[in-house]
Parts: sequence; structure tokens; C-alpha cells
Amino acid sequence: MSDQSQISAEALDRIARDGVPLVAQLGILTEAVGNGTLRMRMPYQPHVIRPGGTVAGPALFTLADFALFGAVLTLIGPLELTVTTSMTLNFLRRPAPVDVLGEARVLKLGQRLAYGEVMMFSDGETDPVAHATGTYSIPPHRPVSVAVEHYRVDDSGRRNGPA
Amino acid sequence: MSDQSQISAEALDRIARDGVPLVAQLGILTEAVGNGTLRMRMPYQPHVIRPGGTVAGPALFTLADFALFGAVLTLIGPLELTVTTSMTLNFLRRPAPVDVLGEARVLKLGQRLAYGEVMMFSDGETDPVAHATGTYSIPPHRPVSVAVEHYRVDDSGRRNGPA
Amino acid sequence: MSDQSQISAEALDRIARDGVPLVAQLGILTEAVGNGTLRMRMPYQPHVIRPGGTVAGPALFTLADFALFGAVLTLIGPLELTVTTSMTLNFLRRPAPVDVLGEARVLKLGQRLAYGEVMMFSDGETDPVAHATGTYSIPPHRPVSVAVEHYRVDDSGRRNGPA
Amino acid sequence: MSDQSQISAEALDRIARDGVPLVAQLGILTEAVGNGTLRMRMPYQPHVIRPGGTVAGPALFTLADFALFGAVLTLIGPLELTVTTSMTLNFLRRPAPVDVLGEARVLKLGQRLAYGEVMMFSDGETDPVAHATGTYSIPPHRPVSVAVEHYRVDDSGRRNGPA
Repeated sequence: MSDQSQISAEALDRIARDGVPLVAQLGILTEAVGNGTLRMRMPYQPHVIRPGGTVAGPALFTLADFALFGAVLTLIGPLELTVTTSMTLNFLRRPAPVDVLGEARVLKLGQRLAYGEVMMFSDGETDPVAHATGTYSIPPHRPVSVAVEHYRVDDSGRRNGPA
Repeated sequence: MSDQSQISAEALDRIARDGVPLVAQLGILTEAVGNGTLRMRMPYQPHVIRPGGTVAGPALFTLADFALFGAVLTLIGPLELTVTTSMTLNFLRRPAPVDVLGEARVLKLGQRLAYGEVMMFSDGETDPVAHATGTYSIPPHRPVSVAVEHYRVDDSGRRNGPA
Repeated sequence: MSDQSQISAEALDRIARDGVPLVAQLGILTEAVGNGTLRMRMPYQPHVIRPGGTVAGPALFTLADFALFGAVLTLIGPLELTVTTSMTLNFLRRPAPVDVLGEARVLKLGQRLAYGEVMMFSDGETDPVAHATGTYSIPPHRPVSVAVEHYRVDDSGRRNGPA
Repeated sequence: MSDQSQISAEALDRIARDGVPLVAQLGILTEAVGNGTLRMRMPYQPHVIRPGGTVAGPALFTLADFALFGAVLTLIGPLELTVTTSMTLNFLRRPAPVDVLGEARVLKLGQRLAYGEVMMFSDGETDPVAHATGTYSIPPHRPVSVAVEHYRVDDSGRRNGPA
């Protein structure tokens, strides 16, 4: 089962609905889960709009935080005592008035800390609107190895292909 | 007027109420404004609670983001085009089930960017629950000098007293 | 020339040699340049070793900072007034006693700010030893579009393939 | 001894000299140690200068990293297994061609992680040139309480006075 998620999209949605009111209120849903990766969708709704029509920073933070939390759970299963210890969020472009996708990846899973990143996109676009990195304190869990793909730069100077 | 805020607490509360739904919903209010500093209060309410009774990370982010935005406005006045470009949030202790205070300070105000920090405390406690630093893109404004006090370590090794 | 670097590896090495003593001293060399991406190598040498045999944090910072600076120059050419405004460095694993590779990618190039990341690997290994993100203030330059590839999570939950 | 440092300035200088070549090379010296706070000085020298006469970012990182490491040791004593897990550095102003002072303060000391900040000043000036926050993994140690002073905003909106 090394290539699959240890938690289903439905189980993540249930955690959001039952235990994290801000996530539930924003309507964030899990679209795809992998092995240390996932994609969530935050629907466009007036509630999260700032003057000028853009998506509010706190809504993007909420998406990033829950997406990375979820990506950690794809590796260790539903250990809800996993808590954020730090998060850095960079706002890169004004989001369009559409859904936002949050695509998360765990870059390190240690004994006590997990670290990863989330790239956020306006639906249908290829340039990210925001990028987050975060650290999570994790409870005791079975050992997991995380393979980091698609981060290597080859001799042509391109980042393309598995590690 | 160099020692006073360029915006009132009431004006900040009005910006929150009219333009930033998440801030309004969390009930965040401005308690004190200075010259590059301010204090905001986020009332304890079930809406922002995580399993275990603690204040949710996104609520703390919202407080930090709006408090630092407001602290910048105490220096440049109500220029709402001021937008967050990055924010780093460190969670230090589990918040108590009480109001959270956000105390913000601008550490640099340049031509195009402002930078500052926010210390967050559970009401009545002296150890911070979270610390944030953030950068804001600011529109053209009158020049302002920011004096950073209380950050100097004297020869006894203590940080105490004005710069 | 949209798919090529606006600066050569040799030109980057010259900047390091002539103008950035710490980079020169660490022997950092550019191995590959692309369009917003590059790879640099920091040779293993006693000078950068901490007790225990691991590579010192400041050496990794120097590699990250110069690699991301260089990646910005691959897009805008040799505009040396490009300066770091912030850098966040996360240490993920103890580096092995070998060369360290720094693989940088620009994620956003705006009018005034560029933002990107650097993944660092012990030579021959696939798990990163450190990850950095940073922001650079850039001088006026010709407009450049940055395509972010390999950050998308598909419906199987995997991050694989072009955006 | 609760109000004093658990390590002397001389002992910190010895750690730098014996074990951290980059710190030793930069000539960083400890000037004052307190209880979770300290001040270090990095002398101005050609080795750390960038084109334009300013102090290089990696030199400021080295100062920040060692100063915060030292501030943690003022609380827990000479436990050298203390290692940096993350560091965020914001460059605020161009340093003057003089010594740089790094003034560090621990904001949280937990069982496994310590967190704090470093404000850096050109000698003789009151506006900071850079601000860093960082997290350290710490080995088992005796319990320590950290009182955070001078971060509270009073009803006049000023940050002034003990917590």
C-alpha cells in the first residue's frame, strides 16, 4: 500500500465538517489524495472576498493549512493530534474570482515533525496565486519514507522528471 | 502629530466591518492605536475552536494579518490598497479558552514595503501563544520614520528600555 | 530565446568570484541554467563542517541565496542590483559528508519582486536536506512570464507532469 | 540563578572558535548574555562586503543563527546538540559600513523546540537592518520558564514596559 493514501478524501472532508468550523464554512473539499500529496478545492463565494473582488488572505491560509495537514495524514493516517507549528504564506498574484485549488506535498516526514508545501492556483490558470510552506508536529506513527519527485534540475537546466 | 496614529480605532473597526468579512465574523476589535503599534482583541467564540478547545490556526492568522495591516495604517493613514505580500506564523503555545490579544508593531516602513510583527497572547497571560511577521505592499504615501524601541539588549544582557 | 537562460553559468560564476566573497570561498559553482531554473554545486570542504560532520547552516543559506539570485538572473539577465529581501530556510535532514546541490526555481517574477524556492540535496541522494523560499527586489527589467511546471496534482493524487 | 545566563560569553566565544568555522572567521563575539537574551557583535571587515559596500546576507544569517543558538544556551546551558530547524530572515535596510550588532531573544522554550528572534542593527543606529526568527531543536533539558517582556501594547497604543 506504499503508493496509496492512508486516508480517503471522504474521511478528510468529514474531519473538516465535524471539527474545523472555518474549513467547513469555506466549503473546502478534497478532490484527490495520493502518497504525501493531495488537491483540495475552495469554492468561490462572497464570504471570502476582499474589496476589489480578490480572495482574502485568511481564506488562502485556511486552505493551505488544511491541505498540508491532510497531505501529512495521507502518509500517517487519521492522527488528528497533528498540529501546525509554523506556516509561511507568500501571496504571488491577485486571485481571479473563481475557485482556488490547493495542491499540497509533504517534503519531509520525520519522527516528530513533518514539513511540506502548498501551491495555490485560481481554477483554470497555471500561474500560482500563493505558495505556502509549513511544519506540523506529529504524534507517534509508523515510519514512512517520502520520495521527492519533480524537484530535480537536469543538465539542460530544466526541472523535469522524477528525482 | 508624529506621536499619534493616523487612523482611529473606530475607523479600523469600520474597515473590518465593511470590507473584510472574515475579520468581521471573528468579531475582532481594535483596542488601542499608537504610532506604528496597536492592540486588537479577538473574542473567544465557539466558531473558532478546534477539537480540544483551542483557538484555530486560521483565526490566529486572521487576527495577525488584520492587526499588522492596521499597524501600517497607523503610520500612513487609511490607504486600503495596502496588501499582504507574505506572512509567517509560529504557533508557540496552546491558547487558553479566552479572548486572544494581538499586539502589532511596524519594524520598517519603506517606500514600497512595510514589515512588522504581531505577538498574540491569551487574555490575562504573559507568554505568547503565537508570533507572526509579515510584509505589506503599500501605495505611495508620505515619508514616515519608525523608531524601534524596546529591542535593545544592554550590557547586563537584558532587553529593557528604549533604543 | 524564451526557453533559454538570459545569463550563462560562466557569467554567474564570475559574479560570485568577483563580487561575493563568501560564495567564492565556499567554491559554489553553477552546473546548469534554464529559464527560471538552475542547479549549483557546493563542494564538500572542511571549512563548512559543523561538529558531527554535517554541513553548517550558514553554508546552506549562502548556497540557497546565491542559487535563487542566479535563477532570477536567468530570467532578467545580469542585473546585479537584484537583492534579497527575505529568505526562509528549513533544515530537513542532516547533510551527508558530500557535495550539496542547490536546485532553484522562480515561482513568480513581478515588476518589483521575484519569489522562488531552492531545494538542496546531498549529492547522490533523493531526499532533500533543506528547502528555502525567498523574495528578491528587482530593478526595472523587460516583462517575463514564468510557467510553473511539475506542481500540479492530478486526479490520482500525484504531482506529476507539466502544469 | 533564575535571572542569569546558564552560559558565559566566553564559553559561547569558545564554541564559535572551536566548532563553527564560519562564525569564527566572521569574528563574531558575544558582548552580553542574559536570561534568554544576548547581544553579539560582528566586526566590519572586507570579507563580508557585497558590491556597493553593504554587509552580505549570508554574514547576517550567520550572525542571526549563532546569536539565537546562543540565546537558547543562556537558558539551557551548553547543550551543543541544539540545532537549527528553520530560520526566516528579513532584510530591512542597507547596513552601514560598520559593525553589526545582533540582539537575540528566546520567545518560547518547550520540551523539544525553542523559538526566538534576532534584531540586527548597524552599530550606533536605532533602525534595524534585519530581523530574523528561528526554531531550534533542543535536547532534553531542565524545565525553564521564559518571561516575555516589552512586547505589550498599553492602552495608549504604545509598546512600553514589562509584560
